Formats: sequence, structure tokens, C-alpha cells
Amino acid sequence: MTKRIAVLGAGPSGLAQLRAFQSAAAKGADIPEIVCFEKQSNWGGLWNYTWRTGLDQYGEPVHGSMYRYLWSNGPKEGLEFADYSFEEHFGKQIASYPPRAVLFDYIEGRVKKAGVRDWIRFETAVKDVQFDDGQFKVTVKDLPGDRVYSEQFDHVICCTGHFSTPNVPQFDGFESFQGRVLHAHDFRDAVEFKGQDILIIGTSYSAEDIGSQCWKYGAKSITVSHRTAAMGYDWPDNWDEVPLLTKLDGKTAHFKDGTSREVDAVILCTGYQHHFPFMADDLRLRTANRLATADLYKGVAFVDNPALFYLGMQDQWFTFNMFDAQAWWVRDVIMGRIALPDRATMEADVADRVAREDAGEDDYDAIWYQGDYIKELIAETDYPSFDVEGACKAFKAWKGHKKAGIMTFRDNGYKSVITGTMAPKHHTPWKDALDDSLEVYLQN
Amino acid sequence: MTKRIAVLGAGPSGLAQLRAFQSAAAKGADIPEIVCFEKQSNWGGLWNYTWRTGLDQYGEPVHGSMYRYLWSNGPKEGLEFADYSFEEHFGKQIASYPPRAVLFDYIEGRVKKAGVRDWIRFETAVKDVQFDDGQFKVTVKDLPGDRVYSEQFDHVICCTGHFSTPNVPQFDGFESFQGRVLHAHDFRDAVEFKGQDILIIGTSYSAEDIGSQCWKYGAKSITVSHRTAAMGYDWPDNWDEVPLLTKLDGKTAHFKDGTSREVDAVILCTGYQHHFPFMADDLRLRTANRLATADLYKGVAFVDNPALFYLGMQDQWFTFNMFDAQAWWVRDVIMGRIALPDRATMEADVADRVAREDAGEDDYDAIWYQGDYIKELIAETDYPSFDVEGACKAFKAWKGHKKAGIMTFRDNGYKSVITGTMAPKHHTPWKDALDDSLEVYLQN
Repeated sequence: MTKRIAVLGAGPSGLAQLRAFQSAAAKGADIPEIVCFEKQSNWGGLWNYTWRTGLDQYGEPVHGSMYRYLWSNGPKEGLEFADYSFEEHFGKQIASYPPRAVLFDYIEGRVKKAGVRDWIRFETAVKDVQFDDGQFKVTVKDLPGDRVYSEQFDHVICCTGHFSTPNVPQFDGFESFQGRVLHAHDFRDAVEFKGQDILIIGTSYSAEDIGSQCWKYGAKSITVSHRTAAMGYDWPDNWDEVPLLTKLDGKTAHFKDGTSREVDAVILCTGYQHHFPFMADDLRLRTANRLATADLYKGVAFVDNPALFYLGMQDQWFTFNMFDAQAWWVRDVIMGRIALPDRATMEADVADRVAREDAGEDDYDAIWYQGDYIKELIAETDYPSFDVEGACKAFKAWKGHKKAGIMTFRDNGYKSVITGTMAPKHHTPWKDALDDSLEVYLQN
Repeated sequence: MTKRIAVLGAGPSGLAQLRAFQSAAAKGADIPEIVCFEKQSNWGGLWNYTWRTGLDQYGEPVHGSMYRYLWSNGPKEGLEFADYSFEEHFGKQIASYPPRAVLFDYIEGRVKKAGVRDWIRFETAVKDVQFDDGQFKVTVKDLPGDRVYSEQFDHVICCTGHFSTPNVPQFDGFESFQGRVLHAHDFRDAVEFKGQDILIIGTSYSAEDIGSQCWKYGAKSITVSHRTAAMGYDWPDNWDEVPLLTKLDGKTAHFKDGTSREVDAVILCTGYQHHFPFMADDLRLRTANRLATADLYKGVAFVDNPALFYLGMQDQWFTFNMFDAQAWWVRDVIMGRIALPDRATMEADVADRVAREDAGEDDYDAIWYQGDYIKELIAETDYPSFDVEGACKAFKAWKGHKKAGIMTFRDNGYKSVITGTMAPKHHTPWKDALDDSLEVYLQN
């Protein structure tokens, strides 16, 4: 009997999984029946922009954390699909830090070509996953139909991401602060903060990029409060880094060093939770956001029940191409091309990955660590091999460019590790490019 | 064997239910075992203010729609508990339109006195309710413990409210509007909109009150867009009522009559959904927001399975005292003091209520209709009878005061229908009273 596979989510990870199976079918293999459940009305996951925040039209938590004017914060040369280059999609090489609409178009291009849209049940939210008697019972809600139903599957591949459920700490005075308090998850448009004094909590990529967006679109000042260490870039004059917020009093923010300042809004860039409320307790991944996730053999197979896989749950330097490496590998386990070892071996693998990550000393070690992980997976499948080392070097150059100019690093270009072509210099410096549409970006 | 009762939610309805059972116990009756599940860390439901919006610290949808500076939008004389007067709680009569903190204190006072807090499992979210073999299986998540568990109950009383899941329509241009778009559910502080041009969509109580808050706290202008008819109050000079929004273009809002204006923010006061995602399909109430809810015998017993009750699901003129009338009645059904009729009779009751509501012509008919409903329930239990007619008259006077001055109606006082005492005139006109704290409000 044909196996049935549930893919949860049709974002970059889920779509990588669909493409992985479709590519096997295209080469003549018999593939299992794939059913992909997607809560949103379109594919693309976070890259499918929505103006909505909080709860959607069906009362479901909004998946999207995407905001307007977002440009890739790392070079596209570090995420290019090995089986579908930017040049194949756009008919030419493009500049290195594409805005959201351009990356969405690229992601979509590959799966349109693959013809996998029919495998996806849109506007269908996963409500419950249980494992019993060798099978998964997946309960979902057809949102427009207001109908809950269950189906049985041999495998579940969880591709629901980990940048959708905000981690929202409380600080003294939030309950009486006379301005807006929001998490990065609900940030949509920097123009809303034009002329305002913004306080950002955190030093993550969200803090760096949302702050930069607010600066670019005319915030009066940006203050970034850190728990442990400042980001330390060469920020513009109206940007300060300060110690941790201790309390808000009216509109006055007080910091650990005794300083204070007036702020109009507080944006919590305090990260996201790995949150899988639909998973039974014994199937639920519980991990910190790190390169070596807890409980996942080869970073994907759930050790407690390796018929269940989680894709893309790592902290990420690599993204789309790592999801591909994982998706091809998971496909091959499910199709019997790769055998899983016994539990002890899987547990040892997890422990080894943790130890090796912990032994790393800096971001460069982390980049090469994740590059090596991708090479390891690719070597075991037919995913097209590519110059992972070259991608690591692009990340290294990127980090240098950020240190040289945090508001100018996106004006650099890198060489594709798939096609070898150098990216053109973009026609407009990032800080002056207020129109982030696909049409304008492609005018090189 | 003692019956087990699950009360879902510890807001005004749930607390009324706990008090109903406790009052029977206080009179010597043997009461069932009551377990109340509450998602929040404190009781009070919507009256438990939170600065949070969207998802809470556990990734659960935030229940609260309460905003700062909210004063009751109807006279307290229409909602006073018949078994616990404002005078009993505060030791004196107080003015008629208390702010949130004052009403929270009042609600809490009664249940503190009743000693029912131990019946509540806080930070416990209901995930699933199924009925099988004559019992309800209620599955909940202990949020801090990250643990899902189930228990069996003989009855479930759903008291989760219907002002927590926003109804959020989309309009053309929302995806590119360069300002904030939010639903009333996420509105927290009118000061955030000081100096701004605000567009409000809708003509509900939320529209009226959030607009008034923004006006009071310094919005530059308020424009209210209606689908069918303007509210028609004598608004301030910087307040306009316009036909339905057709689209947003940049920051320009276009309306059905061809007019347009620049706006900084859009607040959707477009109502809430009766949303019970945790209820099995065959237990889930599906009703419009109206006085005669669908499928509820006597407005509370679910016709398809009358071991299940829903409290407070009506559109509301009466609130706390109606929840009391319902809670006492439900208690008496569960304790065998009131017998439920056969299904056909229950269905006829529902149809009759719908027909009678539909026959009403105006708001006054609606007020008396709901007053009669309360009288009907109270007559069947030992809930202290009170002057419901007097409360209806207070509502009628209130409507007249709103027509006379939409920004001054809260400066009026009414006579308690419980104690007969006239409310004092508040020390400060509402429009000038910027401090809404309990301490300041009680300085009469």
C-alpha cells in the first residue's frame, strides 16, 4: 500500500519537502501520497506578507512576522537553491540582497515549475497530531468550511517554522506605558514610526533590521537595549545602544546604568518560541534556538519517534538550501533509500552535534559548522552538490561588510555558488531605495 | 457519586457560576465538584487588563480586549449584582459610570467574599471538549507546566465570552497602507493616537467608545465609516461620520460617496466572533450576536446536548446581573431543582425567543425583552429578585442622556435598583477626568 505522508506547512521548508518528492517522481520513482496542510491561503510561509496581526479572519494566530520593505539580511548567494538558480528564475543574475517580493517570487517559481500546488490543502490548520498503533492521526480544521476532520498518515514532517510565536517578556511599567508596545512579530511598516523615538529591546537580527528600517524610514531616534552586550556596529548618530531596560515610567524608559530617556514606542525584538501546540506531548519538539537542536537525529528525525521529522528547526545561517538538504534526506529515509540506525546511535549523533557546536568559538565556526552539516546531508542524497564552502565565504564577506557599514552592507554583491556569476551592483544604495517592489528591484 | 462540573473561564460569567454554586452550599445544599479552567493568571475575564496583544507569553491568543481609561459605557445601575450591591462593596454609593479598575474591584469583591478562588485552575487553557458515553472529556493545557491532560465531567458550562476573537474584514489597500491597522481587540491606549487622524470602521459600542477615548486624549480628528447608517450623535467638531470605506491608497482613505481624506491609523471596530475552537463540532455553538441566540433553551442549555450550557452568549444590554440569572438557573438544572423539557419543547422555546426578538421595533423593545428574560429566569430560582423594570428605565434614561450629549452622558447619575440609593454626581466631568484610577474615582 502506498504510504501517506503529512507535510505540515507550505513555507520554505514545506515547499522544499514537496519539491524533494516531486524531483524523485520526475526521475521515475514511485513516491508516497503527499498531503500538505497550510493554514494560510497561499504558500510561502513567512514570505507570504500579510497586513494582519494577532488573530486572522478565522480566529487563528497570524503566522506572518514579515514586515514591509524587508530586504534579505544576508546575501542571496548563501541561500540559493542548487536545483533552481536565481538566473534560471529571473533570466539574469540579480543583486545580492533581494527584497521580500523578489524572494517570494523566486521561492514560488521553483514550486510552480514542479507543479505541486495540488498537494496542498490551503486554509487548513493542523489542530492535533497523535501517534497510535504505528500511525499518526492528524486532526485539522478546514477553516472556511468550519469543519474538523482527521486522517491517518505513516509519517509526519513538521515544517511549521519557528519565527511565528513571539517570545514576549514583561518589563515593569508596560501596563501603564503611554505608547505602543509590540513584538517584532506584529511589526509591519516602519513608516508608522516616522518621527518617533523608538526603543528596541534585544540584539537579534530583528533588532538590527527593524531598527535599521525605522532609521531608513524616518524615525527620530533609535535606542537599542541589550541584556548582555551591545551589537557594536557603527550606528548612525541618532542610534544608541544602552543596557537593559529596568522599567518604564509614563513615557520614560529607565536603564540598568541609571540613564533614562523618553520613548514613544517599544518594539520587543526578543525572539520566538519553538511552538507546536498541535503536537501530542510525546511528539513535541522542545529545543532552544541553536544549531544543534535537541532530540533530532541528523537535525531532522525525532529520536523518540523517528517516523516524525522536523525541518528547519535550527538557528539559521543557511536557510533555503539547508531546508533542501534536509528535505531530500527525509524523503530518502521515507522512501527506504536511507536506513535509520538504532536509538542509541541516534542519541549519540544528537549529543555529538551539541558537543561540536559548543566547541565552536565564534560566528565563523558556526557558519562552517552549519555548512558542514549541509554537506553531510547532501552527500547522502541526489540533491545537486554545490560549493558550500563558497557560500560560507559569502557569509564571511557579508559579516565583514556589516562591520564596515551597517547601513551600506547591502550595497555589496557576491558570486553565485550555483552558476558562478557575479551579482551586479544594485542600481540604488539600500538606504535610498524606498520602493522595495519586485519591478524596481529588477531594474538593473 | 458527586457530579463533576467544568466551568470554562473565570470572567464575569464563570464567576457568576461559581458564586451560584457557592451560595447554594452556603445555604446547606450538597453541591457538585466544580472545576473552573481559566487561561489567564487572574480572574475577571475582560476586566483583567493586559497590555499584551496578539499572543501571550505562552503563545495563546490574548483574551483581553480591554483598553486603558475605559469607563462603563452604560450605567452601573443596569448591571449591579442583586446579592452584592455597590454600597456593600465600597461602603458607600458611587457614581454611575465606573472605570475598569472600579468594576474589576467590585466583581472581585463578591467572589473573594464567597471564597471560590480555590475552585479555579489558572493559566490552564481549554484545548478540546468531546462528549462520549454520557460524559464530557475536557482536555486542557497547564501552560506553565507545558502539560496537556484530560478529565471527565458530567456537565460543561462554557463561560468564555464572545468579545475576544475579533472579526477582521479586509479592505482594498490594507496591504499597502502606510499607517497602523488594528482591530479594537488590540486597542490599548488612546494616547498612542494623540495628534493623529483616526479612521474608525463600524458603528458598534467599540466604535463609539474608542472614538470618544481618542477624542478625549487628543486625537486630531476622528472619522467613523459606516456600512448602513451613521450613529447620529451630536459629535464634536473634529469628528465626522462618513459612508463605507472603499479603499486605501497610500494614506488616503476613499469612501463610498466619493469623498476621501488622509488618515494615520485605521481602527476596525467590526465586532467579534462567537468562537469556541476547543469545542467538538457537535458541541459548538454557532450563533449570530443577538438577544435570542441560536440553539440555547432558555438562552443557556445547548439543545443538541443539554448537559452542556453556554452563559452570556447574548448580545447584551444587561450583563453581570443577566449572567447571574443564567448561572443560578443552570445551577438549579444541574442540581435537579429544575427539569429540562423534551427536545421539541426546547426547540420551540428557541424559536419563540427568536420570533419575539424579531417582532421588536427598536432599542427600547430590546431592553425590555432582555429585562423580561432576566425576570423569567430569576422567577425560577432563589436569585434575589430585584427591580428589573427600574434597570430598564435606567437604560432608557441613559439612551436619552447619550442623545443629549455623547461626551457628557457619563456625568449623570441613577438610582440603584438594589439599594434604592441615588448615585452621587461624579466629582469631575468624564471628558476632563484623565486619571481613571480607582483611588481618584472614589474621591466623591
